[in-house]
Amino acid sequence: MTNTNTPTNTPIRVALLGAGTVGSATARLIVEQQEELEARIGRPLQLVGVATLNPDSAKKYPWIDPSIITTDTAALCKRADIVIELIGGLEPARTFVLTAIESGASVVTANKALIAKHGPEIFAAAKQHGVDIYFEAAVGGAIPIIRPLRESLAGDRIDNIMGIVNGTTNYILDEMTTKGLDFDTALRDAQAKGYAEADPSGDVEGYDAANKAAIMATLAFHTNISIDDVSVEGITSITADDIAAATAEHKVIKLLAVCDRSEAGVSARVYPALIPDTHPLASVRGSFNAVFVKAQAADDLMFYGRGAGGDPTASAVVGDVVTEARHIAQGSIGPDIPMYAQLPMAPVEASRSAFAVRFVIHDKPGILAAIASVFAQHGISINGVNQDLKPTLHEPGYSGELQQLRLVTHLCDEITLRKVVEEVKQFDAVTGDATILRVMD
Amino acid sequence: MTNTNTPTNTPIRVALLGAGTVGSATARLIVEQQEELEARIGRPLQLVGVATLNPDSAKKYPWIDPSIITTDTAALCKRADIVIELIGGLEPARTFVLTAIESGASVVTANKALIAKHGPEIFAAAKQHGVDIYFEAAVGGAIPIIRPLRESLAGDRIDNIMGIVNGTTNYILDEMTTKGLDFDTALRDAQAKGYAEADPSGDVEGYDAANKAAIMATLAFHTNISIDDVSVEGITSITADDIAAATAEHKVIKLLAVCDRSEAGVSARVYPALIPDTHPLASVRGSFNAVFVKAQAADDLMFYGRGAGGDPTASAVVGDVVTEARHIAQGSIGPDIPMYAQLPMAPVEASRSAFAVRFVIHDKPGILAAIASVFAQHGISINGVNQDLKPTLHEPGYSGELQQLRLVTHLCDEITLRKVVEEVKQFDAVTGDATILRVMD
Repeated sequence: MTNTNTPTNTPIRVALLGAGTVGSATARLIVEQQEELEARIGRPLQLVGVATLNPDSAKKYPWIDPSIITTDTAALCKRADIVIELIGGLEPARTFVLTAIESGASVVTANKALIAKHGPEIFAAAKQHGVDIYFEAAVGGAIPIIRPLRESLAGDRIDNIMGIVNGTTNYILDEMTTKGLDFDTALRDAQAKGYAEADPSGDVEGYDAANKAAIMATLAFHTNISIDDVSVEGITSITADDIAAATAEHKVIKLLAVCDRSEAGVSARVYPALIPDTHPLASVRGSFNAVFVKAQAADDLMFYGRGAGGDPTASAVVGDVVTEARHIAQGSIGPDIPMYAQLPMAPVEASRSAFAVRFVIHDKPGILAAIASVFAQHGISINGVNQDLKPTLHEPGYSGELQQLRLVTHLCDEITLRKVVEEVKQFDAVTGDATILRVMD
Repeated sequence: MTNTNTPTNTPIRVALLGAGTVGSATARLIVEQQEELEARIGRPLQLVGVATLNPDSAKKYPWIDPSIITTDTAALCKRADIVIELIGGLEPARTFVLTAIESGASVVTANKALIAKHGPEIFAAAKQHGVDIYFEAAVGGAIPIIRPLRESLAGDRIDNIMGIVNGTTNYILDEMTTKGLDFDTALRDAQAKGYAEADPSGDVEGYDAANKAAIMATLAFHTNISIDDVSVEGITSITADDIAAATAEHKVIKLLAVCDRSEAGVSARVYPALIPDTHPLASVRGSFNAVFVKAQAADDLMFYGRGAGGDPTASAVVGDVVTEARHIAQGSIGPDIPMYAQLPMAPVEASRSAFAVRFVIHDKPGILAAIASVFAQHGISINGVNQDLKPTLHEPGYSGELQQLRLVTHLCDEITLRKVVEEVKQFDAVTGDATILRVMD
């Protein structure tokens, strides 16, 4: 041992809240690597407690000493130097995190919902009590993205972040693309394989990605951007026809978390988008995540890795634990989270994009001209039209021949585009079904 | 301003050593973003001096106050809280860095040669004097890779790192691949475009990448691995024929920095290798860099971005400056660099790989059988043979028809392979020219 840190031998006390997939993997990393982690920290490290509502389940992990399993989470929070919060959700996680902070413990959490909703309250409490809050695992699983945003890029100005940050939806879209499945089948398949939860709405409706978008935007723009500020579209309306049309155009559909800074302000949005199949994000498959960052001096950066799963998430959690334990061993403290900028949210009108709109229509003479003229009346110019594809879906209440009409616009503003689509859907020959997808370069 | 850091208004004094491409870009980021950086830090920041041997050249940058330009580097080191060393090379950079540390200043450097050679001395001095040393820009330019290795992955165990960390060689290999150029032409082209230096040896012979391999291996394996421990092969012997043969096999040749931990010990090596054109590293083009990391819990991670250039490197430098300035503002200190493990270097015999060997031969009856039997005698089995390709080179001293014989082996140890190649080169019908390339999966 050449490590010459603080000679004190008092162990740094670590408490773990939650013993599910990530919690048990975190406990295993800490216990099995204890000696190595201590050498990195320069002080002994001790897992003093594992709080869970289901002690019997926690006891099945041989690396967790049964005698430290407890159901009294609040009491455990008060007898630790570092509290690892892996309960998830808003309450009681928020209360326990605040209890830990008020008791002088630093907090490591993987809880994206908590940080995206209550970040400012928690950051302020940590600052007030002189403790740290780390949450690398909250975005992108094992991928180091929080630390680069907080520290590596602290000398630069970030303009744009574009990420695939939800493995469940990425897996579903992948299965739809490679196997030609419809959404429901791909979802059931993902559920059967454990990639999607029984209630998949948090993933497929985009809220999980939205939490991550809020966190990344807050750190990148030094402005408090809450989950409530994020506009969210999920993938539930994507059909096998949308995928087939994308494939025919050498594009793929990906659910993106996009954080943007422009003259109009900042924005954080989640939406499915068409991206060229040559784009590096297009080849991010299955449950992998990837985040692109564009900064003024650094230019393009990409971070790629496993976005979920017990071991990858635990890697990020324990990395934070070691970072914080080193601070404690050295009597120092980590960086706070400055939100000095308070940039305005960009108004929705400022959101401009090219769009691909897919209508399902009864092929009647003049219908294309009628639809195109609605676009023209609102000043939206059309970049491409495709009326070849037969839909695979069967609209209820319609008999006879249905066709798909797919229009790709030039850059236009989203509000006008949505107005045009609503207007077109009023036509007798147009069914109520329409998909709107952004088209990225 | 909602920042509530230490209320002191004493500016944190920053000194810049070197005013070349990276130095001038660093000064610009600090000066032009001063207000924003101060908000992130919570204290005023002041560029108190720019040391250069060429003051007239530094004066051409309008963002550098001419009154702070100095040629007395040692004196400047003693009146700063943070010294940014961008001189490069071993001396006098080492002396100035130690002067700064002994004067109580923390150091930010982009100097890979200095850290790879004198890291332990500098880290020990910093620890002794209670200051920090940051060097994110020393590997991979703008790409955050040092901080992830030091902190994000501190709770995990890294098994392997494989990186494209030299943009000059990557650009040259790219030009050879896409334009069919030979090495000398591609090098001259790179020099004309400013991607290669007048004396290109540090890049093309692999030493630049070797410094980066030493730094990454030291951080990943918690073991002091110096530049002197790195085995290095450059790309000067790669011919247009090697590239053509690789292309025919749907492979590309990349110069890789490879850090590996196995039962036999650790290793850090730089060599050109054949990788499948579907591998994510294969699509890293031109001056971009990318680093793959394989860790036991995190699994595969990739970091990608601009590996050189004034602005990208300055982004990494100023990120370190902000990190250190926050420590100073909070009265805290950054993590040290634990080298507790002291793992042995793996012996060369432990290096096993598949190899592609290209001989230039006179096509005589029985020559293939004779060569193949040398491989067989040494227990190396052959995975594939190709004798179709005509060489484009003309060996001096040989007239008549030359052919290329290309053999791809199964896994074998490197020492035996090199012995076999030397033996084969003794044959009358074999010219002295042979290329040995590792084949990666």
